[in-house]
Amino acid sequence: MAKAVLTISSKNYGAWALRGWLMARLAGLPFTEKVISPDDPEMKAEMLLLSASMRVPALDHDGVHVWDTLAIGEYLNEVCPDAGLLPADRAARAHCRAICGEMHSGFSALRSSLPMNIKAHFPNFKLWSRAQSDVDRILVIWNECLSRYGGPYLFGGQPCIADAMFAPVVTRFVTYDVALDLPSADYCRTILTLPAMQEWVAAAQQEPDEIDELDAEF
Amino acid sequence: MAKAVLTISSKNYGAWALRGWLMARLAGLPFTEKVISPDDPEMKAEMLLLSASMRVPALDHDGVHVWDTLAIGEYLNEVCPDAGLLPADRAARAHCRAICGEMHSGFSALRSSLPMNIKAHFPNFKLWSRAQSDVDRILVIWNECLSRYGGPYLFGGQPCIADAMFAPVVTRFVTYDVALDLPSADYCRTILTLPAMQEWVAAAQQEPDEIDELDAEF
Repeated sequence: MAKAVLTISSKNYGAWALRGWLMARLAGLPFTEKVISPDDPEMKAEMLLLSASMRVPALDHDGVHVWDTLAIGEYLNEVCPDAGLLPADRAARAHCRAICGEMHSGFSALRSSLPMNIKAHFPNFKLWSRAQSDVDRILVIWNECLSRYGGPYLFGGQPCIADAMFAPVVTRFVTYDVALDLPSADYCRTILTLPAMQEWVAAAQQEPDEIDELDAEF
Repeated sequence: MAKAVLTISSKNYGAWALRGWLMARLAGLPFTEKVISPDDPEMKAEMLLLSASMRVPALDHDGVHVWDTLAIGEYLNEVCPDAGLLPADRAARAHCRAICGEMHSGFSALRSSLPMNIKAHFPNFKLWSRAQSDVDRILVIWNECLSRYGGPYLFGGQPCIADAMFAPVVTRFVTYDVALDLPSADYCRTILTLPAMQEWVAAAQQEPDEIDELDAEF
């Protein structure tokens, strides 16, 4: 069987790319990365938040082409059932999919006003009220999960697709210096010390600045 | 086991409510409806498109509380595995989840400028360019599915969660008099003649106009 190929955009700016990539790493599926050019319309769409229906990231595996981050997560869970990408308990699994769905379609104020930008750091960044509401809701989601399932990940002792869905939020909270409660700060540290996250962040730090002009168009 | 309860908003305006309700009907799960008041913040959020992370519709079943429409669909597929809510073939299932994901997080121009309003009809409604791009992409998605899987539903001979995800789009195309190619027009007729859709549309037509003031706030 040919090795899987994951198509992604920027490691510094591509929040959806990070989600799909981290899911594939958590699944343990061997894959090669195909990084699309900053000139590609799909990349621009992701960078400029023009459309959430972009078809990047995308996974090609075993003759199957699947795009959309949640669909990639469900596909990976099917082909790597032992990886624990979804919680084993039915009620926890429903809870996991519900918060993944919230992240997938919601938090537009957070996503547009605090775009992922791993290389940057903005101390004392001022949040506007709707972005603060999004942050507040995310902290409620995290605290409910951490207290119900015991941490250190959202659904207990191992990372799952929900942790991948919220991983770009963790990097944003660092970039924009967002004030966090203690359990949430601990959770962010847990995610940032995952070997796969350290690898991604290191690659983002070294990414050339060629697409910085996109940033000015926000 | 207590009967399932599905919490929904307006039948005339609630596009997410329609998706979740239709999925539950397709699953064959007996449920009672709980309709939230127009004064409920979750209902206002859905009506005003203020947030896609609203927690309506929501399903309570067998001690499990699940919100977010896609999570409800996956849950129903698990508890009613014989209903065919997802295609049996792995590649088709991945394709189904990918287009459901696109509908779940995308098409914001369509959703904001052509809100679901079953009771209304606007002949010769003028689409702005971004809404037209959303329509064009939806027609591409539908035509790919109808030609690949043979119709009359998106994934072949029986309706699945993808048909539920696009059902509010079908009603919008009628409401706003959107020009369609022949296969798409046939598909819309197929969806509108589903007994569950006829029941929903009839209930929407009879819904009191008490929440019409919300419409003015778009």
